Amino acid sequence: MELTEKKLSGELKYSGVIVSVTLDQVELCDGEKTLREVVHHPGGVGVLPLDTDGNCYMVRQYRYPVGAPVLEIPAGKIDHHDDHLATAVRELSEETGFTADEYIDLGCCYTSPGYTDEIIHVYLARGLHRGKSHLDEGEFLNVEKMPFEALFGMVMRNEIIDAKTVIAASKAKLWLQGQTGQK
Amino acid sequence: MELTEKKLSGELKYSGVIVSVTLDQVELCDGEKTLREVVHHPGGVGVLPLDTDGNCYMVRQYRYPVGAPVLEIPAGKIDHHDDHLATAVRELSEETGFTADEYIDLGCCYTSPGYTDEIIHVYLARGLHRGKSHLDEGEFLNVEKMPFEALFGMVMRNEIIDAKTVIAASKAKLWLQGQTGQK
Repeated sequence: MELTEKKLSGELKYSGVIVSVTLDQVELCDGEKTLREVVHHPGGVGVLPLDTDGNCYMVRQYRYPVGAPVLEIPAGKIDHHDDHLATAVRELSEETGFTADEYIDLGCCYTSPGYTDEIIHVYLARGLHRGKSHLDEGEFLNVEKMPFEALFGMVMRNEIIDAKTVIAASKAKLWLQGQTGQK
Repeated sequence: MELTEKKLSGELKYSGVIVSVTLDQVELCDGEKTLREVVHHPGGVGVLPLDTDGNCYMVRQYRYPVGAPVLEIPAGKIDHHDDHLATAVRELSEETGFTADEYIDLGCCYTSPGYTDEIIHVYLARGLHRGKSHLDEGEFLNVEKMPFEALFGMVMRNEIIDAKTVIAASKAKLWLQGQTGQK
């Protein structure tokens, strides 16, 4: 049986600041009908900045949806006309002040494909140059420098649980192991 | 400056099948006011089932929000009264038919804490016993057996991009390396 679903009709249920929600009637692969609720999101990027001494630069900010400060890699939403890399360059600079010589593509992820179309692209930034951060209005965060190995330990001990940060740190660890010939 | 935001008032903007959306007025840490949009989700689990021959069992299903079939670890939403482990046991059985002797906790993740409270817990299931799958109505998926190393390769080549699957595979890889004494 072919795994597909066909849209029959759709309704915009909510149009908000970041997301919108649609509720579509769809035909399933067996011909039956059901409803599919979709949270539409513009997508985003995350950047793990790593310096030549093995330190990375994280941001801690209050995340209202989860009611707590969360330690994450610098990140942001894609603006209308920007591509992923341009967004990565912009967000790294805005939140930490850094520019980077090299952005290594660590891939992308669907955050939760059961109900949202959000995709986040993650990068490892190397060859860092210090500049001045310039946060958006209403954006408050602390930049925290830590050894990459400490970050990785926090991920493995479940002390860092932001998905894009877990993915970036895990993929960066495995990428760095590959660079040094470890298996 | 303390990183916190205080709710001043809230409005339910949408109440749906899986998610609801609220729009709250909040006070930022500098005393200014802004709006925070939150997508509320019940949370979920993902389970990576790994047999003694090094094979894992994945599910491929059409994900309407992203408009494509997606290869993922077996997973599902938390029901009203269930805890994470009970949900993991139930979803593994429903989608693949397997029961497992051991569920290793690989931690949890916020899928996108900038706009949703969704948390997904991931497990590595070992000591598998075959049974019969029993899908929910309207649920169509194919179970695909593959060597764990093949899955891991697909993650590293960005051929698998579901966040919980990337996180489970990366953490399982590093956990298995730890078991065999590799660094």
